[in-house]
Amino acid sequence: MELTVYLAGEIHTDWRDEIKNKAKEKNLPLSFVSPQLNHDRSDSVGEDILGEQPGKYYRDEAASSINNLRTQIMMQKADVVIALFGEEYKQWNTAMDASAAVAMNKPLILIRPEKFIHPLKELSNRANVTVSTVDQALEVLAYIYE
Amino acid sequence: MELTVYLAGEIHTDWRDEIKNKAKEKNLPLSFVSPQLNHDRSDSVGEDILGEQPGKYYRDEAASSINNLRTQIMMQKADVVIALFGEEYKQWNTAMDASAAVAMNKPLILIRPEKFIHPLKELSNRANVTVSTVDQALEVLAYIYE
Amino acid sequence: MELTVYLAGEIHTDWRDEIKNKAKEKNLPLSFVSPQLNHDRSDSVGEDILGEQPGKYYRDEAASSINNLRTQIMMQKADVVIALFGEEYKQWNTAMDASAAVAMNKPLILIRPEKFIHPLKELSNRANVTVSTVDQALEVLAYIYE
Amino acid sequence: MELTVYLAGEIHTDWRDEIKNKAKEKNLPLSFVSPQLNHDRSDSVGEDILGEQPGKYYRDEAASSINNLRTQIMMQKADVVIALFGEEYKQWNTAMDASAAVAMNKPLILIRPEKFIHPLKELSNRANVTVSTVDQALEVLAYIYE
Amino acid sequence: MELTVYLAGEIHTDWRDEIKNKAKEKNLPLSFVSPQLNHDRSDSVGEDILGEQPGKYYRDEAASSINNLRTQIMMQKADVVIALFGEEYKQWNTAMDASAAVAMNKPLILIRPEKFIHPLKELSNRANVTVSTVDQALEVLAYIYE
Amino acid sequence: MELTVYLAGEIHTDWRDEIKNKAKEKNLPLSFVSPQLNHDRSDSVGEDILGEQPGKYYRDEAASSINNLRTQIMMQKADVVIALFGEEYKQWNTAMDASAAVAMNKPLILIRPEKFIHPLKELSNRANVTVSTVDQALEVLAYIYE
Amino acid sequence: MELTVYLAGEIHTDWRDEIKNKAKEKNLPLSFVSPQLNHDRSDSVGEDILGEQPGKYYRDEAASSINNLRTQIMMQKADVVIALFGEEYKQWNTAMDASAAVAMNKPLILIRPEKFIHPLKELSNRANVTVSTVDQALEVLAYIYE
Amino acid sequence: MELTVYLAGEIHTDWRDEIKNKAKEKNLPLSFVSPQLNHDRSDSVGEDILGEQPGKYYRDEAASSINNLRTQIMMQKADVVIALFGEEYKQWNTAMDASAAVAMNKPLILIRPEKFIHPLKELSNRANVTVSTVDQALEVLAYIYE
Repeated sequence: MELTVYLAGEIHTDWRDEIKNKAKEKNLPLSFVSPQLNHDRSDSVGEDILGEQPGKYYRDEAASSINNLRTQIMMQKADVVIALFGEEYKQWNTAMDASAAVAMNKPLILIRPEKFIHPLKELSNRANVTVSTVDQALEVLAYIYE
Repeated sequence: MELTVYLAGEIHTDWRDEIKNKAKEKNLPLSFVSPQLNHDRSDSVGEDILGEQPGKYYRDEAASSINNLRTQIMMQKADVVIALFGEEYKQWNTAMDASAAVAMNKPLILIRPEKFIHPLKELSNRANVTVSTVDQALEVLAYIYE
Repeated sequence: MELTVYLAGEIHTDWRDEIKNKAKEKNLPLSFVSPQLNHDRSDSVGEDILGEQPGKYYRDEAASSINNLRTQIMMQKADVVIALFGEEYKQWNTAMDASAAVAMNKPLILIRPEKFIHPLKELSNRANVTVSTVDQALEVLAYIYE
Repeated sequence: MELTVYLAGEIHTDWRDEIKNKAKEKNLPLSFVSPQLNHDRSDSVGEDILGEQPGKYYRDEAASSINNLRTQIMMQKADVVIALFGEEYKQWNTAMDASAAVAMNKPLILIRPEKFIHPLKELSNRANVTVSTVDQALEVLAYIYE
Repeated sequence: MELTVYLAGEIHTDWRDEIKNKAKEKNLPLSFVSPQLNHDRSDSVGEDILGEQPGKYYRDEAASSINNLRTQIMMQKADVVIALFGEEYKQWNTAMDASAAVAMNKPLILIRPEKFIHPLKELSNRANVTVSTVDQALEVLAYIYE
Repeated sequence: MELTVYLAGEIHTDWRDEIKNKAKEKNLPLSFVSPQLNHDRSDSVGEDILGEQPGKYYRDEAASSINNLRTQIMMQKADVVIALFGEEYKQWNTAMDASAAVAMNKPLILIRPEKFIHPLKELSNRANVTVSTVDQALEVLAYIYE
Repeated sequence: MELTVYLAGEIHTDWRDEIKNKAKEKNLPLSFVSPQLNHDRSDSVGEDILGEQPGKYYRDEAASSINNLRTQIMMQKADVVIALFGEEYKQWNTAMDASAAVAMNKPLILIRPEKFIHPLKELSNRANVTVSTVDQALEVLAYIYE
Repeated sequence: MELTVYLAGEIHTDWRDEIKNKAKEKNLPLSFVSPQLNHDRSDSVGEDILGEQPGKYYRDEAASSINNLRTQIMMQKADVVIALFGEEYKQWNTAMDASAAVAMNKPLILIRPEKFIHPLKELSNRANVTVSTVDQALEVLAYIYE
């Protein structure tokens, strides 16, 4: 049973590579999809494709429309979603993806640092499983194949 | 045509009263529902009902399960959702509710302060309408009845 | 059995009043909802509420986001949709609403002038009933109550 | 991740070949499906299969029933829909397909010539991304694989 | 708890009046909806509203489009469906409505004469309850309120 | 905001009256629906309506078909489901109703005696809230109206 | 684009082989699924698997439960449904499958002999395409690949 | 037509191997998925992955969250569900999975020992087919391929 895993969340660390490598080591038949990981490209893609926009707001709106199309496609293909909250930034995208996963009946694993237990409590309660580390998330995936 | 509006988001200012009062002045046939607005009660409701829990994490889990039941019921009853992001806090609940609204095909109005244009760009793109002030959100509601 | 009818389509003639008056004469327990019928307001509502936009494209985008929120709410409340194509204009909104009605399993009555038989053939085939006049559409509604 | 793209809209130019060729050059794992591109066949298919009909209206009805069956099958298989509005004709089919895509949660890219910004504003607002050229649409598709 | 009951099936006997009267006697808070019970009107409604059609086939097609719109509206309003098969006729409409009810998750009570046990076995298996008489169907409805 | 609550589960104690009375005391705008509470009637309703069946298995099948129709109607009307597991019996009906509630996106409150923590752990995890007493369940309902 | 076609309806003639052979000749990438074509087996499968039942009614009920499981699986796998009404028998199964296809948004081709135009008019109106011969149905399938 | 079968229920006997072996002998193109069959691992997986929990209740909650994620993924992949009730234990998980299958429109085969006819009557009525032995369940699967 091959599964597609959407890796939502933080794009400033290499946690996705870590998961992919460990899944490979364990020979899990998983394929992974992700949002755009190049932050600059993610911010500029609207203007890159549609041309210059009349100000920051419109630049953001153009970029996000393309990022959302990408996410919608991948989320619909995914069998499981893992959402990692990092230690910094607002990360409302991550919350948006995690919540959409729940509403679309996609099983959700939340990776949440200790310090965000309180502000993430409602989202954590809606997730299937909440873990603290990337390794734990992988162990949950591996458990599916036991 | 009576509509039910779920007012998601910040609970530390009185923006909900402002909307309700102005809707009343304009005689709009709207009824409003909200999350628990008493922050302390919202945090303690798990232990208030289920008894003491073995630590902060479990206290939060218990509270959020009850808050989420409440939100799910109201969201399902709502015809429109307004989500307001304040200037402070993580507000991942607000992002969760806004995203769930979109996934459930509930029309969404986002109230977003200027300074959050960039971090909220993807959520804003998925909302039906994004405004900057409570007054603008009310004008959108009023437009439905013109 | 009270029904809500969404009257999509042309806003430059008074066909909606005609339907409403005749439904009243026949004592049919119908209530009617419509898009914004004031064309200027419909075009300017984005800037009216959100303030001046940086050009025509953005003015249109702002207006349409609010018009679409309005339509989505009404369509979801509607039990039947009547879509009238007039003799002029592109009327892609009308086609959009009619198609959305079909996809949402809302029964659809299409009012189509003779001269548009050919270009509207696919949409007509997806409608439940296609008629040529407002009177015929009303007779179909009346038939529900016989 | 292989994706199926439904190319709705204008059938009088060769924009579909352009997209297919460029996708091939970029080695994108896309497969494309389309409506019947032979206009005469599309109009006559009803009588071709079902035999002569009693007049133009019935000829159109017969043809459109078969075209719609074809479209429904392909739309349900598609992961993304691109809808191109040409400079001429009523193109209500295109609007119908684009709107159906949105209602079916299929991500939608709209290709819209400058001169139709105003009449297509509501449909554009419901699309995920609106672009002006075929090249831009392809760049959006390519971005999914970056 | 008021319920709406759609009474599908045979229109040549007065079984619907029987059910309505007995429901009244028992003070059950039920309201009943039905297809067009005047057979001639049901067959001619297409031409009555849309004008003369070019032959029997087209006359039937016109009538059925309007009858189906009526049925779709009522079925969507119904909380329960009762479908009665009479002793005569093909009654494919009845089978169509009964099957649609199942597919739409509307609870279905089938009233089936003894002699049709075999040809109706698959439909009977998909119904919630199969009975032999109108009285039994009413008893099932009454049981909901015990 | 009036809500309908389906009270699934044990029928050998009077916990439903307790909940109803306390809800009345607190003036909560709730209405309650239940399965058949008369155990004998629930077991015999198949033969009561359909006549004698050829053995116990068929007697049970006949009764359950009518009980399930009743449950399906009420579950579809319900805004919230409370499922109480008693101390005795197999109670697979209760588990069936609770699981159906979750699958239908009906918020679920589970009332579970201490001794069933282990065998009910998976169902409890899928419920929105799990409590130990009827009073706690009512407090959760009351919280919706705070 | 490979498609799965469910061939509902009459099992007393070899129309399915005819379609399969012609599809093969035309190299259409279609795979076909069907109900049980051995009539005796279809009637006896309940007792064949579950053992003797207490009478004809129960024998039929047992058989139909297994036939319906089979149909449900195949219908869910199908991309298109073809339903053929023969000249004889009640054929309520065929009507049931055809109606279920429509309700499940599976495109439906109806093959209907001339003499059943009138009794099948409502079902025909809900089908995507109605044809008179097996050859015409195949031409419709072939058109998908033009 | 390859099918995926989810084998819910009892994990203390080797009935799954029996089904798999017999399916292999008959060359049925079936693949099987199951819950965690190692009972101890199933109970400890929460603490195994998430670390020690503050008591039995929390240990169970942690384990069940991971078991449910696993089940949700497999159930969504499954084309058919077989649920076997053994002679012992509460087996509320089995009832939960069986009921979820019905609510998700997954065809359900129930394997039920004689002695549970009465307590399982409602669930049996909702299943597509109820059998007494593993062999009978396999015969039902085999029938799909006849």
